[in-house]
Amino acid sequence: MKAAFPKIGKIQYEGPNSRNPLAFKHYNPDEIVEGKPMREHLRFSVVYWHTFRNPLADPFGVGTAIRPWDDGSNSIANAQRRVRVAFEFMEKLGVPFYAFHDRDIAPEGRTLRETNKNLDAVVKVIKEEQERTGIKPLWGTASLFTHPRYAMGAATSPNAEVFAFAAAQVKKAIEITHELGGAGYVFWGGREGYSTLWNTDMKRELDHLALFLHMAVEFKKEIGFKGQFYIEPKPKEPTKHQYDSDAAACLNFLRQYDLLPHFKLNIETNHATLAGHEMMHELEVAGSAGALGSIDANTGDPLLGWDTDQFPTNIYLTTQIMYTILKYGGFTTGGVNFDAKVRRESFEPIDLFYAHIGGMDAFARGLKIAAALRKDGRLAEFVKQRYSSWDSGLGAEIEAGKMNFRKLEAIMLKKGEAAPNMSGRQELLENIINEFI
Amino acid sequence: MKAAFPKIGKIQYEGPNSRNPLAFKHYNPDEIVEGKPMREHLRFSVVYWHTFRNPLADPFGVGTAIRPWDDGSNSIANAQRRVRVAFEFMEKLGVPFYAFHDRDIAPEGRTLRETNKNLDAVVKVIKEEQERTGIKPLWGTASLFTHPRYAMGAATSPNAEVFAFAAAQVKKAIEITHELGGAGYVFWGGREGYSTLWNTDMKRELDHLALFLHMAVEFKKEIGFKGQFYIEPKPKEPTKHQYDSDAAACLNFLRQYDLLPHFKLNIETNHATLAGHEMMHELEVAGSAGALGSIDANTGDPLLGWDTDQFPTNIYLTTQIMYTILKYGGFTTGGVNFDAKVRRESFEPIDLFYAHIGGMDAFARGLKIAAALRKDGRLAEFVKQRYSSWDSGLGAEIEAGKMNFRKLEAIMLKKGEAAPNMSGRQELLENIINEFI
Amino acid sequence: MKAAFPKIGKIQYEGPNSRNPLAFKHYNPDEIVEGKPMREHLRFSVVYWHTFRNPLADPFGVGTAIRPWDDGSNSIANAQRRVRVAFEFMEKLGVPFYAFHDRDIAPEGRTLRETNKNLDAVVKVIKEEQERTGIKPLWGTASLFTHPRYAMGAATSPNAEVFAFAAAQVKKAIEITHELGGAGYVFWGGREGYSTLWNTDMKRELDHLALFLHMAVEFKKEIGFKGQFYIEPKPKEPTKHQYDSDAAACLNFLRQYDLLPHFKLNIETNHATLAGHEMMHELEVAGSAGALGSIDANTGDPLLGWDTDQFPTNIYLTTQIMYTILKYGGFTTGGVNFDAKVRRESFEPIDLFYAHIGGMDAFARGLKIAAALRKDGRLAEFVKQRYSSWDSGLGAEIEAGKMNFRKLEAIMLKKGEAAPNMSGRQELLENIINEFI
Amino acid sequence: MKAAFPKIGKIQYEGPNSRNPLAFKHYNPDEIVEGKPMREHLRFSVVYWHTFRNPLADPFGVGTAIRPWDDGSNSIANAQRRVRVAFEFMEKLGVPFYAFHDRDIAPEGRTLRETNKNLDAVVKVIKEEQERTGIKPLWGTASLFTHPRYAMGAATSPNAEVFAFAAAQVKKAIEITHELGGAGYVFWGGREGYSTLWNTDMKRELDHLALFLHMAVEFKKEIGFKGQFYIEPKPKEPTKHQYDSDAAACLNFLRQYDLLPHFKLNIETNHATLAGHEMMHELEVAGSAGALGSIDANTGDPLLGWDTDQFPTNIYLTTQIMYTILKYGGFTTGGVNFDAKVRRESFEPIDLFYAHIGGMDAFARGLKIAAALRKDGRLAEFVKQRYSSWDSGLGAEIEAGKMNFRKLEAIMLKKGEAAPNMSGRQELLENIINEFI
Repeated sequence: MKAAFPKIGKIQYEGPNSRNPLAFKHYNPDEIVEGKPMREHLRFSVVYWHTFRNPLADPFGVGTAIRPWDDGSNSIANAQRRVRVAFEFMEKLGVPFYAFHDRDIAPEGRTLRETNKNLDAVVKVIKEEQERTGIKPLWGTASLFTHPRYAMGAATSPNAEVFAFAAAQVKKAIEITHELGGAGYVFWGGREGYSTLWNTDMKRELDHLALFLHMAVEFKKEIGFKGQFYIEPKPKEPTKHQYDSDAAACLNFLRQYDLLPHFKLNIETNHATLAGHEMMHELEVAGSAGALGSIDANTGDPLLGWDTDQFPTNIYLTTQIMYTILKYGGFTTGGVNFDAKVRRESFEPIDLFYAHIGGMDAFARGLKIAAALRKDGRLAEFVKQRYSSWDSGLGAEIEAGKMNFRKLEAIMLKKGEAAPNMSGRQELLENIINEFI
Repeated sequence: MKAAFPKIGKIQYEGPNSRNPLAFKHYNPDEIVEGKPMREHLRFSVVYWHTFRNPLADPFGVGTAIRPWDDGSNSIANAQRRVRVAFEFMEKLGVPFYAFHDRDIAPEGRTLRETNKNLDAVVKVIKEEQERTGIKPLWGTASLFTHPRYAMGAATSPNAEVFAFAAAQVKKAIEITHELGGAGYVFWGGREGYSTLWNTDMKRELDHLALFLHMAVEFKKEIGFKGQFYIEPKPKEPTKHQYDSDAAACLNFLRQYDLLPHFKLNIETNHATLAGHEMMHELEVAGSAGALGSIDANTGDPLLGWDTDQFPTNIYLTTQIMYTILKYGGFTTGGVNFDAKVRRESFEPIDLFYAHIGGMDAFARGLKIAAALRKDGRLAEFVKQRYSSWDSGLGAEIEAGKMNFRKLEAIMLKKGEAAPNMSGRQELLENIINEFI
Repeated sequence: MKAAFPKIGKIQYEGPNSRNPLAFKHYNPDEIVEGKPMREHLRFSVVYWHTFRNPLADPFGVGTAIRPWDDGSNSIANAQRRVRVAFEFMEKLGVPFYAFHDRDIAPEGRTLRETNKNLDAVVKVIKEEQERTGIKPLWGTASLFTHPRYAMGAATSPNAEVFAFAAAQVKKAIEITHELGGAGYVFWGGREGYSTLWNTDMKRELDHLALFLHMAVEFKKEIGFKGQFYIEPKPKEPTKHQYDSDAAACLNFLRQYDLLPHFKLNIETNHATLAGHEMMHELEVAGSAGALGSIDANTGDPLLGWDTDQFPTNIYLTTQIMYTILKYGGFTTGGVNFDAKVRRESFEPIDLFYAHIGGMDAFARGLKIAAALRKDGRLAEFVKQRYSSWDSGLGAEIEAGKMNFRKLEAIMLKKGEAAPNMSGRQELLENIINEFI
Repeated sequence: MKAAFPKIGKIQYEGPNSRNPLAFKHYNPDEIVEGKPMREHLRFSVVYWHTFRNPLADPFGVGTAIRPWDDGSNSIANAQRRVRVAFEFMEKLGVPFYAFHDRDIAPEGRTLRETNKNLDAVVKVIKEEQERTGIKPLWGTASLFTHPRYAMGAATSPNAEVFAFAAAQVKKAIEITHELGGAGYVFWGGREGYSTLWNTDMKRELDHLALFLHMAVEFKKEIGFKGQFYIEPKPKEPTKHQYDSDAAACLNFLRQYDLLPHFKLNIETNHATLAGHEMMHELEVAGSAGALGSIDANTGDPLLGWDTDQFPTNIYLTTQIMYTILKYGGFTTGGVNFDAKVRRESFEPIDLFYAHIGGMDAFARGLKIAAALRKDGRLAEFVKQRYSSWDSGLGAEIEAGKMNFRKLEAIMLKKGEAAPNMSGRQELLENIINEFI
């Protein structure tokens, strides 16, 4: 179990012309972009579940992953050894963060008490590794969707005891995240939705979900956890319909139940596209509501209807993301969390490196291109000009609340027709972006 | 121009075994269902645009419709003659309502003033026909998407004068609707969205949209219009992304801008499915928020990605709709509005009859099946049982706000595991529904 | 392990008004439809994999199924006990057929030899049960997609030894199917496709697949297996792109490699819709090529992008299927094979009964409605009329090959314009179908 | 009508750092790539329909396009003036080809004879412009989908006279294409499909389509037209289901009716993705069948379900296309035909320049990147290695036809298990591609 990974040392920046597949070509953590180092802009995070617990099974086949350090058992010893390997991996990559579900890091026991004990045993080793490396959780979360008890939801289960169990589980998960210095905590409602409306009381389930989240907010305050709470939208899968289907649905729910001040959104590319939205759209919806928190960096396949969770390598996508993140002031508590898995055919340990290196480089390029586009200024200037009719005269008066239907009708009866529009110039704008790709 | 339609007289109910294709087989307006006549439950409405203005063109071909009463001109005389035919058609069908856009009923002039004059000339004839027949608008609306001035939106246009023009146009449309005794007024944001985020200031556009709707609310009060205001969700088409993408997005917007008390939703099947939701889902989202107003009755093709606006004939669909409508107390101001068009190959006037008769019969059957399912009670009883753990004991205490994470953890540490779940029985429930189809 | 299933005895036909959820309401095996008993029309088949081997796991959660007769082990004894239960289940349902993969019925060993031995041990028990009950395989098949060796395909693997292993496995699977008196054998290319074209030599892979199938044809002849060979189309999942993406793609492949005389198609509803086609379309494509063999009866969710394999309960769907099957002369070697699984929340054994009863009843209704539509004759008559211009005159001459572009131009230059079209009457036709639903 | 376009002169290559939005940054027609000038690799073609006849209407709004040279009339004079402008435009862009439908270039008359006369009058001017500029048709085609007569298909119409009219129309279109020196002729079956199977005889329609194409082949020989015939696949829109739904469906049809020797495929990106395939997949399917002819260069929006026909600017897409084109030996008769339209909001003449410049530059980059990837060789070498087990030993024997199921079983019973697979390395390959983007 000694040589868990190829002996590759720390991944270094070697510049765009490097032919070394195990070197960064664009991610130089110390390089200054818009006044601060790339590492502070990007705040990369590795996910424990896909990278260290996913056997690369799919609905039609068993796992293929070769993970020499993992004996496949549910023992604490195996879980602890896995922690050491995970930190070795993250150290080599040079990422400052990771994200985890409670059940990723430690096995579930026969009782809640035993499960919690298992968690404590592993958390102890994690803390040692955190101290050794300085790597910390970007966020923690609880798996409320894997176990059969959660088959019909956790906070939205028709079974009140399942709600109670979930509450106990989330309490512990928040405690662990707090103990490990996590910068946030994510609520993804894996089964908070329905399979068929014919057996479902949607309103009652949503009321319960709101109660649950209020309890979480109360508990967070009680223990002094300062991390950010996030909701993660997803439209479907595993349930036919998830309540948190997209950013707008989440915001609607948070507003309805007075939870908006306590939550931001964790937006994932693959979830956005499954909901029929571009990632950039979801980021804008969240950002314009002051709720843009963190991102799950991956990509779906636009021709496939499920969560493929592929590593992001498309520079257009990473440019769009980082442009919007910069527009809204950059990450504070959040970061670029690689909620992505290698393909089932990429089953060797070294594929984990290729995948993360590619994703990190793609985001580094996205960041640099976004910064260049902002510096160039043509895009922003075009938008400014396009809306300039609102900056003075009639537009300004409307925005100032000085107009009503009667006054506007009088103006338009007099004019007869509105002034001509200005071309939207989508093609020109796309060409400008291509200048920087 | 005399014999506009086949000489068919009024469409009669002839019972399920009738072979007459021009007779209702299920819609008997006087038949009592759940305590009131079907006509009051269903409140059928014909749309002016598809039924009287759609030439049956598509992006790859010109119109095919044969409409002997329509000379194809933009003259007032043609518009007035069309009104007479429309009321003849609606009378024969026996529908109590219709819906219209301002630009459906009268041609646009060279100036706003001329356009409004055109409208007045046609409204005069409509009023005569309304008095003669008793048929009234279920709702009116303004076309803010056809004219080139609206290419980039109306209330969300980057051009402030377009906003002003739209305000003047909506003012007039509300006035007409009021004058005609309309039961409601619909806002469908045909181009309130974007083609590309690169040229769009989404936040500013949404602020403008909210301003616009507040002006409408203010104007409505001013003139004493008591009809219901509706927002109609749709995710895409004509724009790449419409702001009112689904019921949740609309509710989120209405809550954010303090507009929720003034609006309900007008839910359309084809828009629901384009958004990735079942119609029943959208009705539940609206209903559980107290915002279920009216429906646009049609169907999309689940294998096609655009608004096919087909006439609804699927009994499962109409059952789901009417079951949910009955659950939320039935229509008050709203109704079943056939926002549907005959296929381009169904170009004869009589096809309009077949299409509406089929749709009305399908809704009559949906209503009767829904009522039978409610009377049978097994579905509702199953749902009640499924959530019964919330009606007493732990569940009741949670709902009453007496619990928190600490207490629930204590309970679960003691129990060790949650009580087993009860099977969701989706297959059994589907079989029960099939008993009534 | 005694009381494997609820003590329910054989499922009986009790008529449409029966409230007994464990009785057929429409499937009466002895009822004569179009001259023969329903059982001979429908040839129902239960699938071994979903009904007896699916733990009801999904990508986000472990299995939930309660199967008291199954100890979860990979032992031969468990596999043999499962066989007894399966035949008890099928007997109670009264189905004449089942379908299986080699790996469903017996566990894979450490070597091919051991695996084959395991198979023989279980096949022995199956034969006993077959003799006892008269139930036989509708078809057998080999799982060439579950094991990691097949991660990159079986016959299309880049690894020649995997091809060889698959050949050996299929040889044995055909032998077993032959031994058990199977009416057919299915090739579903679970991983015969690609994840990315960048690492794929599509042409070479397809050449290999054709070689493989030719070997299968040769072997079939050699051993005297008279069952029908089928190809089963599916567009995606588990691979990004399956080579057998739809009926047309399969036919193209079969034609290209001279395999068409040896294969028919096994068409599945959920695969059809994932490919963007209606089930009825795929049946027509297969039927008009003389290659309509058998069907996998299930349904997808048109709003979800993966293979949901739900039990079919929609009467419109089953009517369309049975109408097309009757049109092409009914099943010969094929049948209605329920490639469907209960929802993950429907985890009790009795849900397997509800699901199959619902599916069988839905197909019985589809059959009866299809027969009634054929007897009524209006649909067929409409189609006949619609194409009547081809039955004589110009149309007949064209069909007879007597025309060319020059002659047709001469005719049309003289006429100037084609005769008017006849309305397609889609709405009327849909109303006629609704008369029979 | 003098200054039809901005006075911009010919578009020049100014190099990648040019800030001039009306200059090429990557397309240098004389630059040598893989041994020949870019112009010969790319063979750019402008489409007459979108660029000169599309008013930028959509199903929800009328046209917005400002085209000062077009008086909107159906006169011959207008059609002739439009030709002059089109050639001015193409000359400025420096493209060698264009594509047209018969009805794009000249108005339809009241009779076929009049229509043909109109065509001749415009073709005369086109010939003058062709002689002046050297620009020629990449291909011609006939619009068999716009006119109401074709509402139910042309060659597949239920109306035999429509078939005859279409034959006459195509005869003339082929003659014109021949006269103008066109390098090919495209058959796109705009309405060769169905709206509902309930009124359709698919088999008879396909037989008619095959007859029609055989007549075309015969006529082509008769007049000595040497241009290439193409079929263009598309899955849906305008019909619910097009017969030529994808490359495989077209090839299946061509094989079934012995037409494959006479046709190649014209593959369009937006059609590929609507069919659920990547463009690269469709090119491979066509290429591996020896039927890769030409491409319609555009892009769809993966989140929209209709033919958006956007200009292609994505470098990944153009790289994939040109890599596959180079792999199959480059274009011979075909080329890069921009079947794309500016957005409805991009209504000014200059937007036509921005759009084409962006598309041409994107393809120039795609070509250069593809050539660089080929020169680099790592991708090709990886594929070679991946299939190397087939180049000798067991694999070679299988390919040579020396194996059968019995022999392969014997080998595998001895080995027990296949040799391990090699990782598919998708992530690494994507990183290599990103090195060149």
